[in-house]
Amino acid sequence: MNALGKHLLLELKDCNKEVLNDLSFLKGVLSTAASEAGATVLGESFHQFAPQGVSGVVIIRESHLFIHTWPECGYAAVDIFTCGDSVRPEKAAQILISKLEAKNHSSLEIQRGILDSQ
Amino acid sequence: MNALGKHLLLELKDCNKEVLNDLSFLKGVLSTAASEAGATVLGESFHQFAPQGVSGVVIIRESHLFIHTWPECGYAAVDIFTCGDSVRPEKAAQILISKLEAKNHSSLEIQRGILDSQ
Repeated sequence: MNALGKHLLLELKDCNKEVLNDLSFLKGVLSTAASEAGATVLGESFHQFAPQGVSGVVIIRESHLFIHTWPECGYAAVDIFTCGDSVRPEKAAQILISKLEAKNHSSLEIQRGILDSQ
Repeated sequence: MNALGKHLLLELKDCNKEVLNDLSFLKGVLSTAASEAGATVLGESFHQFAPQGVSGVVIIRESHLFIHTWPECGYAAVDIFTCGDSVRPEKAAQILISKLEAKNHSSLEIQRGILDSQ
């Protein structure tokens, strides 16, 4: 049985707190991560919270990348949801871990859409 | 230890295939689900795929709701990511299960942002 989608949930801890609050930087990182992973970017939506924190999504042809940041905790939650075999989500994960300077991270991979008929 | 976020991953199967391909309908359902759950909608981004399928996100103050649909399989992947205690993600899940007429569904709840310092 094959899954329709692959969902990578990243927990990024002890990150650079300044970049976690930099919407412009994070937008660039997420777009770069999507492109470097081989995905086609279709759209994006970002929001800056007060006093701090950013939420943002990049919609790709192959699903999406999402980030929520808590700068005060040095923490970011990242989702990389892809479908098909042409995208390498692990490459996107590596870029995010590096650019956010996460000293600690963990990841969980979940198969989405495992259907009986497949 | 408390988590910063609560992430509900829904697998909706044997849904109404027509509504899974109806961007306008899905946009309304996601917004309604967010509001009924007590969330504050900040923005949204939806995309219609050819020949079929819809991806869409509603960004809420308390994180996000996401949907990817595969009408040909009667399947939708839904994420409901919330933070804080004011939102009831289970309420949003119930609305989506009902409106998409999912005859089968499963859900997985994952705590995000469990930090040592909390």
